[in-house]
Amino acid sequence: MSIRIDPWGYSVIEDYNKLFDLFGIQPFSEDLISQLDEVPYYVRRGIVFGHRDFDLLLKSIKRGDRYAVLTGFSLSGKLHIGQSLVIKSINWLASLGNSECHFILADLESYLIRGIPLEEARKLAEEDVLPNAIALGLDPEKCRIYLQSREKNVQRLAITLSKRVTFNELRAIYGFDPDQTSTGKIFYPLINAADILHVQLDEYGGKKPTIVPVGADQDPHIRLTRDLAKREGFVKPSSIYFKLRKGLLGEKMSKSKPEAAIFLSDTPEMARKKIWNAFTGGRPTAKEQRELGGNPDICSVYEAFVYDLIEDDEKLLEIREKCVRGEIICGDCKELAGDLLEKLLEDLACKREEAKEIAKQLLSE
Amino acid sequence: MSIRIDPWGYSVIEDYNKLFDLFGIQPFSEDLISQLDEVPYYVRRGIVFGHRDFDLLLKSIKRGDRYAVLTGFSLSGKLHIGQSLVIKSINWLASLGNSECHFILADLESYLIRGIPLEEARKLAEEDVLPNAIALGLDPEKCRIYLQSREKNVQRLAITLSKRVTFNELRAIYGFDPDQTSTGKIFYPLINAADILHVQLDEYGGKKPTIVPVGADQDPHIRLTRDLAKREGFVKPSSIYFKLRKGLLGEKMSKSKPEAAIFLSDTPEMARKKIWNAFTGGRPTAKEQRELGGNPDICSVYEAFVYDLIEDDEKLLEIREKCVRGEIICGDCKELAGDLLEKLLEDLACKREEAKEIAKQLLSE
Repeated sequence: MSIRIDPWGYSVIEDYNKLFDLFGIQPFSEDLISQLDEVPYYVRRGIVFGHRDFDLLLKSIKRGDRYAVLTGFSLSGKLHIGQSLVIKSINWLASLGNSECHFILADLESYLIRGIPLEEARKLAEEDVLPNAIALGLDPEKCRIYLQSREKNVQRLAITLSKRVTFNELRAIYGFDPDQTSTGKIFYPLINAADILHVQLDEYGGKKPTIVPVGADQDPHIRLTRDLAKREGFVKPSSIYFKLRKGLLGEKMSKSKPEAAIFLSDTPEMARKKIWNAFTGGRPTAKEQRELGGNPDICSVYEAFVYDLIEDDEKLLEIREKCVRGEIICGDCKELAGDLLEKLLEDLACKREEAKEIAKQLLSE
Repeated sequence: MSIRIDPWGYSVIEDYNKLFDLFGIQPFSEDLISQLDEVPYYVRRGIVFGHRDFDLLLKSIKRGDRYAVLTGFSLSGKLHIGQSLVIKSINWLASLGNSECHFILADLESYLIRGIPLEEARKLAEEDVLPNAIALGLDPEKCRIYLQSREKNVQRLAITLSKRVTFNELRAIYGFDPDQTSTGKIFYPLINAADILHVQLDEYGGKKPTIVPVGADQDPHIRLTRDLAKREGFVKPSSIYFKLRKGLLGEKMSKSKPEAAIFLSDTPEMARKKIWNAFTGGRPTAKEQRELGGNPDICSVYEAFVYDLIEDDEKLLEIREKCVRGEIICGDCKELAGDLLEKLLEDLACKREEAKEIAKQLLSE
């Protein structure tokens, strides 16, 4: 636990500090980590960098209170590896105590925000997102899984919540343009809030603490939801925040640039090719790199080790140090990453095929 | 049919003409009336003063097309007599051809616009609005009756439609203030549009012409809905417009001024008292009135004859002429109105008691 590796480098840490100052996200501190029996690698490496009221949740869990673990995914593209940690975190969070679990397939989000027809979104959920999530460990026996467009309690609560907030309040959070923004986009944050809060309705066992693991960019939704929870008399949900992945090209990992991300349904060959073309922290020549060393803090291959491929901290540190000292060069790391990805993707593919039947059953009307 | 009595006087007709010019409402013309086999008194008296595409609907009906008759009421107060004509018109409109009928209890409207809790709205529907509507002739065997908050297809369609319109488009129609208007109020017009359009979803038999009888103040909803119908590929709904009642105090009849309106659940004594205090077109003294005559065009008692109490045109004209010539004075009319109201309210009360059990069954979850 003394090893804390930050995959983003200091300049990026400064940005995350801004989130602390500007929005009141609390840092995921050593003190908080020391209260955990099991510390997943993405927590001890600071990939989970912040939270809201996670400490309160832990207290509540220690009292034996029932709590909900809840997260969801927009259905706007195939699941990529950058999204897998949030899914992995569900089982960890559920294991902390007397929990229930909810997994949201956000087809209304992909429809209202990105214009993807609901039927197309459902298909994507059935064929890619849900099978991959199950392959990553989501347990359909233990976790309620639902499509937003089919959940009338969520839609009804969203309408109820909409009474509590004005256009300008939402504009202040989301930057809406009154001439460009559709009423659907204006309304969507209420659906998101209703996803999180509806598990506190009587039909779902009443008020309870809730923990929402999400990417850092989802914090506006969390802020709004916590505000609405207060106004409507729900327990304010807690959250933990994951740092956003850089892509293989050194930018934010995105579904719209297939070469910048490893998709969970990529073949090992495709993944190996992407890794081979990935942005690294290497030097112009191998000779220079052996002399001066590489820079893992800006290297997307090293990022893949940190986030997805190497859970053993000592092994990771060894690679980092060898890179910095010039003892290994980019080709070595790419080779290793390709091998590890092959193993990971083959394992996923096998589990995914089994999961497809379950997904189909869950999403048939 | 040559007798056309206008209960509003010429100045008010000028206002309605503005609706024709400004918004493109079409006048409910003699030509249109001549196409009807049965002409209800509220149509021949010009209380139904305008429409949108009612002529197209008639053509469609003559071709034998199935069509929907659809209207609804906000649940923000007890039903008053000013609302009864729209309800009466349902059976007339349904009798024109191969129709189906939908009656909406708009609890989301009373919640989002007026802040009335859904449970309170449901209770009002169960105890007053629905029993009175049934007493007025709404037939629960032939007409689908639903509470907005329970109709998931409406809510889902509202969300779908919300993608099609921006904040500023709605502001242009409704005059929303971005600082004051809740997202719920911004969103409500989409629920209203979904009420009207959802009957064209496959689950309800697919696309079809629809006729919506409403008060003139509901036209903004109709304009938006027709626009959205076009954008989403539904048949544009037709509408007919009722003039808004003046109240017994000479202003718009309103639920918030109980002395200005006769409520359908008022006792005959209460009604008689309200009529006795009502604003008339009389002169300062009985003597003067006998010499100069009264003015029925501004008289709220005469308005009650026109709208609710006297269906026989000749009898109505006789009263009008006697008033103008000073042959009867206000006390005479108030006496008559009290007697007619007593009969009407007693008849309603009797039917309403029977209808309460049906309403309770319909609205139990």
